[in-house]
Amino acid sequence: MASETAAKRQKSSKDVPYNLVYWPGIPGRGEHIRLALEEANAEYRDTAFTEGGMDEVLAFVNGEVPDDAINPPPCAPPILKHGDLTISQTPNILQYLGVRLGLVPSLEEDPDALYRVNALALTALDGLSNEPHDCHHPIATGLYYEDQKDESKRKSEDYVKNRLPKFMSYFERVLGSKASGEGPWLHAGVLTYADLVLFQCLDGLKFMFPKALSKLEREGKHTKVFALHKAVAERPNIKAYLESPRRQKYSGGIYRYYEELDIEP
Amino acid sequence: MASETAAKRQKSSKDVPYNLVYWPGIPGRGEHIRLALEEANAEYRDTAFTEGGMDEVLAFVNGEVPDDAINPPPCAPPILKHGDLTISQTPNILQYLGVRLGLVPSLEEDPDALYRVNALALTALDGLSNEPHDCHHPIATGLYYEDQKDESKRKSEDYVKNRLPKFMSYFERVLGSKASGEGPWLHAGVLTYADLVLFQCLDGLKFMFPKALSKLEREGKHTKVFALHKAVAERPNIKAYLESPRRQKYSGGIYRYYEELDIEP
Repeated sequence: MASETAAKRQKSSKDVPYNLVYWPGIPGRGEHIRLALEEANAEYRDTAFTEGGMDEVLAFVNGEVPDDAINPPPCAPPILKHGDLTISQTPNILQYLGVRLGLVPSLEEDPDALYRVNALALTALDGLSNEPHDCHHPIATGLYYEDQKDESKRKSEDYVKNRLPKFMSYFERVLGSKASGEGPWLHAGVLTYADLVLFQCLDGLKFMFPKALSKLEREGKHTKVFALHKAVAERPNIKAYLESPRRQKYSGGIYRYYEELDIEP
Repeated sequence: MASETAAKRQKSSKDVPYNLVYWPGIPGRGEHIRLALEEANAEYRDTAFTEGGMDEVLAFVNGEVPDDAINPPPCAPPILKHGDLTISQTPNILQYLGVRLGLVPSLEEDPDALYRVNALALTALDGLSNEPHDCHHPIATGLYYEDQKDESKRKSEDYVKNRLPKFMSYFERVLGSKASGEGPWLHAGVLTYADLVLFQCLDGLKFMFPKALSKLEREGKHTKVFALHKAVAERPNIKAYLESPRRQKYSGGIYRYYEELDIEP
């Protein structure tokens, strides 16, 4: 592949809108991508609000999208198409967007900041998104919740009592660390995509486990984490987005409300 | 932070050995990092083989490592220290090393290759490392396997029958795609860290679910995935590593052998 071709592709990639391919009807993992795009006021198309959007998602999921000379086939949504680039995996898409949309610290001054921010986003996604998902699907993603209710209850109890406080305390510690810098953000005193991820995780957890989150907020041991949630919600572009019809309601995605899983901590 | 300082830090980072902080006694998630370092013949120190290594891991896990002005505190091992950089999260460390150790395609020609490789590594880790781990710990990582045996059996059955073939077929498809290029590798015709990750996943799965993996190999539907495993094992530096005492035996980590979980597919 000639450098000239790559340079052309880079240019073309920057001149066209972003395309998010994700399941219509749920915020899900796609919501992390939307928040980055919305905060940066980027132009994007979203299969959640596009005619035939579901067909586009299904074509990828069913392996019906024609083979591509540049991009490996993606395994699952969210998928980002940008020019002739097609990539998948939430933290990966966020990293790509973070660099382009100014949602990482200046990499000219400190190239390694990319890896510091990425670790924070990966940890939030692991402990505050993937684990909550597994609370209602501990046995098999291919089975209904109703077919794994007892196991879900058991896992949720452990999550609310052990895992959730562990990760909340971890992020409180990060926010109080020297490397977080001034202000409400996780790293280097600037808003990064890791902050948006943590916001979305906390927001979803408040919906899924209201009793536990209320108690954590009342106890006052994680004030910095809750302050970050508030600070993100007050960003002008995020505020406008959250009030818009583009912000979908929680339903059958990652964060679900089941009364019996809303454990008293 | 001045650019000069950052430039100095970059330089110092490149002149010192890598330090892997990971639990002694198991290959675990640290093994992905070791394979990248070994393939590249990089100089590194490993807490698995260092006096006081366990104490070093525990100091991080228990939050006893003094606060750092540059790096957020890491949440969990594996942790990589390199000069004054400290980062965590397996796919994040791999990306950092991949760029430095020549385990990604040329980013000068195609900067986006980083995201293509990263998506493949993340997908392998999700489906072929994290999910197998959850097969023996579906309810709580803090409980013993013995306290979640029934649920483990149920999850392993689903994994072996549904999830494992799904991910194997996905990677077979990637290996047969145009974007994989010539030769046995996943992307662009060159060995990347994603190939090393897929090798390690398959290697662990052969240990954990020998019946299922034997059947998949006999069936001949995933010949490219099995050929990749063989091709990585034959790389001179990897071969020497696998035969060395540095390659730890599978035991109580991600990939565990329990006869009752070795499901007949």
